[in-house]
Amino acid sequence: MEDFIFGNLTLTDEIVAKLTRQMRGVYHGHRMDPTPAAPGRPVALFATTGPAVAADAAYLYYTTDGSEPQGMGGQASHGHVLPMQRVSTEWVPLLWDYVAWWKAELPPLPAGTKVRYKIEARDSVGATSTFADNGAADSQTATRFSFPVGDAEPPAWAREAIIYHVFVDRFNPGAGRKFANPGDLRGFYGGTLRGVAERLDYIASLGANAIWLSPIFASPSHHGYDATDLYAIEPRLGTADDFRALVEAAHARGIRIILDFVPNHVSNRHPYFVSAQTDPRSPYRDWFTFRRWPDEYESFFGVKSLPQWNNEHPPARAYMLDVARHWIQEFGVDGYRLDYANGPSHDFWTDFRLAVKAANPDAFLFGEIVEGGGLLRTYQGRLDGSLDFLLTHNLRRAFAFGTMSLAELSTFVDRHGAYFDPRFVRPSFLDNHDMNRFLWVVKGDKRKLRLAALCQFTLAGPPIVYYGTEVGLSQERDCRTPDGHGRPHEARAPMLWGDAQDADLLAYYRALGRMRRERPVLWRGEHTTLAVDNPPGTWAYARADGADVVVVILNAGDTAAEVSVPVAGLGLADGTRLRNLLGEEVYAVAGGRLRVGLAPVSGVALAV
Amino acid sequence: MEDFIFGNLTLTDEIVAKLTRQMRGVYHGHRMDPTPAAPGRPVALFATTGPAVAADAAYLYYTTDGSEPQGMGGQASHGHVLPMQRVSTEWVPLLWDYVAWWKAELPPLPAGTKVRYKIEARDSVGATSTFADNGAADSQTATRFSFPVGDAEPPAWAREAIIYHVFVDRFNPGAGRKFANPGDLRGFYGGTLRGVAERLDYIASLGANAIWLSPIFASPSHHGYDATDLYAIEPRLGTADDFRALVEAAHARGIRIILDFVPNHVSNRHPYFVSAQTDPRSPYRDWFTFRRWPDEYESFFGVKSLPQWNNEHPPARAYMLDVARHWIQEFGVDGYRLDYANGPSHDFWTDFRLAVKAANPDAFLFGEIVEGGGLLRTYQGRLDGSLDFLLTHNLRRAFAFGTMSLAELSTFVDRHGAYFDPRFVRPSFLDNHDMNRFLWVVKGDKRKLRLAALCQFTLAGPPIVYYGTEVGLSQERDCRTPDGHGRPHEARAPMLWGDAQDADLLAYYRALGRMRRERPVLWRGEHTTLAVDNPPGTWAYARADGADVVVVILNAGDTAAEVSVPVAGLGLADGTRLRNLLGEEVYAVAGGRLRVGLAPVSGVALAV
Repeated sequence: MEDFIFGNLTLTDEIVAKLTRQMRGVYHGHRMDPTPAAPGRPVALFATTGPAVAADAAYLYYTTDGSEPQGMGGQASHGHVLPMQRVSTEWVPLLWDYVAWWKAELPPLPAGTKVRYKIEARDSVGATSTFADNGAADSQTATRFSFPVGDAEPPAWAREAIIYHVFVDRFNPGAGRKFANPGDLRGFYGGTLRGVAERLDYIASLGANAIWLSPIFASPSHHGYDATDLYAIEPRLGTADDFRALVEAAHARGIRIILDFVPNHVSNRHPYFVSAQTDPRSPYRDWFTFRRWPDEYESFFGVKSLPQWNNEHPPARAYMLDVARHWIQEFGVDGYRLDYANGPSHDFWTDFRLAVKAANPDAFLFGEIVEGGGLLRTYQGRLDGSLDFLLTHNLRRAFAFGTMSLAELSTFVDRHGAYFDPRFVRPSFLDNHDMNRFLWVVKGDKRKLRLAALCQFTLAGPPIVYYGTEVGLSQERDCRTPDGHGRPHEARAPMLWGDAQDADLLAYYRALGRMRRERPVLWRGEHTTLAVDNPPGTWAYARADGADVVVVILNAGDTAAEVSVPVAGLGLADGTRLRNLLGEEVYAVAGGRLRVGLAPVSGVALAV
Repeated sequence: MEDFIFGNLTLTDEIVAKLTRQMRGVYHGHRMDPTPAAPGRPVALFATTGPAVAADAAYLYYTTDGSEPQGMGGQASHGHVLPMQRVSTEWVPLLWDYVAWWKAELPPLPAGTKVRYKIEARDSVGATSTFADNGAADSQTATRFSFPVGDAEPPAWAREAIIYHVFVDRFNPGAGRKFANPGDLRGFYGGTLRGVAERLDYIASLGANAIWLSPIFASPSHHGYDATDLYAIEPRLGTADDFRALVEAAHARGIRIILDFVPNHVSNRHPYFVSAQTDPRSPYRDWFTFRRWPDEYESFFGVKSLPQWNNEHPPARAYMLDVARHWIQEFGVDGYRLDYANGPSHDFWTDFRLAVKAANPDAFLFGEIVEGGGLLRTYQGRLDGSLDFLLTHNLRRAFAFGTMSLAELSTFVDRHGAYFDPRFVRPSFLDNHDMNRFLWVVKGDKRKLRLAALCQFTLAGPPIVYYGTEVGLSQERDCRTPDGHGRPHEARAPMLWGDAQDADLLAYYRALGRMRRERPVLWRGEHTTLAVDNPPGTWAYARADGADVVVVILNAGDTAAEVSVPVAGLGLADGTRLRNLLGEEVYAVAGGRLRVGLAPVSGVALAV
């Protein structure tokens, strides 16, 4: 069974339906230039009107003080208004019809300004209005868009991070205890925060300088993505003091702590939701979105136990921002991995960014956004980056499923890198807690895991290692049942310790981590393809910054390969000797080329 | 049964398949800026490379002397080469992947230059090339693109034309003869060129100042789209002298003659094809495209009796250009309606334009291009215009099938007008020889025909009247059989003459023609929507050029409607009186508005 990372998102019918829906109406889609907005420079905002909308005018209503812009028919009732210009008309084959393009240019604004705006398409003949993107007929109910001006630079540490991803209940019980065995991977295995703290040396030995902890707030589940109290540590995992001690011990070793933060939803046992659902006069009614009180409400993908937190309701949003500030200010947390970040609005993320960065400008905010590149890119300026699901998808296709050639992967990596602003940090991973472990997909063939990890560790994005992947932890059953239902907990087996670990694999991962720490060119260098499919199944590329060069050569083929890589363009003169950073071999440049023999499914990373 | 004008082209699956195919490879698609190329200004040319193409460079090879550019890997072996710059990367949801955009800018060139070019995407790592758009591996077999610089202005007469479309065998036998009755609409009814000449007064009475004749060259069929001799008049239709006499008589009345010209294919009885197919050493082998001689060859939509003329073979192309010049130079023909113009290449049309315009700069060249707006627009600069199938499709949806509201039609007309350069002339029509007659679709409801024709005659494109539509000619059976096969000849019944004509309808059409001839503002004025769907089913618009204004008000509804149209913005002061150009009614502006009562399915065109 192939991967299901993007679910139905990649199905042609779904893509067509979504594009058609967007293009038929009034669509902004956060399209602006530049993204993010630069201080002191004008910002162009774009919208399209499709065949469902008869518009002879369009208006942008905006504020720069955080208040809610309002207006209709070109008259602002709160804030400013700019008429949009109709700049072009586009034929859209899928509609077999046209869309009109509109543009407005905001004046230059200082850094830190929050621009909040709404877009109206106006049919002045019929005196009707349609607002982007939700099709509202008035500005009161229209989609609120926002962006912050400037401040697009991510924390310096984020770009050079190696992140170790700990699923807390499954990592280490600590204090000499063993894992419990509930007999079901949905049960509790007894991992704790203290257990994590006890393994900081182990984590540091991988070269990791950041830890992403799965959710640690009070929750009834083993995974914690259903909080009942965002201000409390789940007692099973430890105490507030345990957490404080963990942060301090990590910081003492130069390791940052990243929390898994879920702003989109909570548990249906969260007291505010219980109140909202049971008390008709509850002050928390509007903190959730009841379609029909008390039993029909918005939730995460329709899962009733995960009611959606209404971040468009100001008090609910303020609460969520306060939580985010709290863990940073009171505990020194270094950043958030933001669960289902494409749930809450860009307007929410604008506020979130401003609130968190005010508390700690060095906090790293990256989203879980399982989406296409187009939407991903709109988060720049709001978030510092996002998990790189697109890369994961293709690394797994190329190195695990064998459904993508290295030539195709090379082309993808090249364009993927060109598409995003390098300031938008995209942490990479081979597997996580929601999908089959890489090693399970390749039926235990650790050569394939090593090769994929070598590629991962020599690309720009900060690599994430999912606990256990580095020591051969796998799983017993597929994360999807034969009839297609999900059981992601299969990928959350307890961590292997001691003799259960694959020492060779661990040593290899440690070498990868060391290499990446010692060679910043791997993340900040320029990516250049040197050879592809010559011989078939091989790929050579350089990460280079002037004379600082690493040459990576991969052989994904089933047979040994002799690869001849042109390196004269990298400034490597004949006679220059390069060493494999992951082994002992040494190769000399001759005739402008490096000639390297590679065993089946293996690779090298060479440097002077 | 709904219309089938665009056939499978509008099916989502077909659109997706075509877009995907284009975007996966190297695709130019004639994308340039500006279109057409302006003399003395640089011209930007664009291409995309998709996931199937690993390209780290791209090159444009071109000539300006008509010769064939050649080159590879950035080295021109004939003509010039320009490296293309990689300007951006685009996420394409349908591919769930990226395309890279490339751009090259040609230096300014003088008017009349023919630019011929090829585009190479180069994988310098693998030392392989892929050429746009056909994916060829070398420039010898690559798609040739071309455009002429400048000369984008269509003949002045084309924009103001009213075109009468004669299907010659079905129009008038002449010389006192009656139509034959072969008992089958695929037989011969005996219409002749002399018969057309005898009816010039009739045609002129419609306000028509141009006649489009269905194909008149030697052919075995009733329709003539399968020529056996492009230099001979089909004897059934008359002689060369008859034709010369017709042209002269028409010109004497200020009526232009447009021939239906078929460059894409000929009859399989054409002597050159017979030679090519029967003689292994025939000099005409390459004038056709044999996939496997003698029985497998390229043909029009796979119809074996219509072998494709290989216009990419220089002698075959030269022959076709000579034919086009011949009828202009020797007989004074005023233009060509170009059958299946999206068959031959843009390179062919560039040559065709230059050849024809050299013979007569005032010749009008418009294509039959049954395609979407995107492709249509690429013909600008090569052709003077194209038949407006998109408008026909929507006029029929709105006024005949009732599957499009007037509000949607209004939005379409607005964007359709904005999308095309006004210099690209788009003749409009309600029906033609390949589709059900409008009157048949509306089951004889002439009110609907009148209303649609009023709309047609008050939009910018030169209206075409298909013979007989103006006198109530209809058909007996649908142009598609119940199992979906086509029988377009059902729409080619013999013309009605004398008492068989609907005199009222004819008078109405004459009034429409007179109105359009007397009011150039109808084609050169600005289109402004004044009211839509107020009351429902109504639409009011103005064609205006300063104080020169026509206000059109349509009611497509089944009930009478009182329409109140704001006209103050048109400069029509209170008290101004406007007359219905198609009747006697007079309306006065009051309170900045015109109030007009309309019977069900009726309309007015008002002017001071």
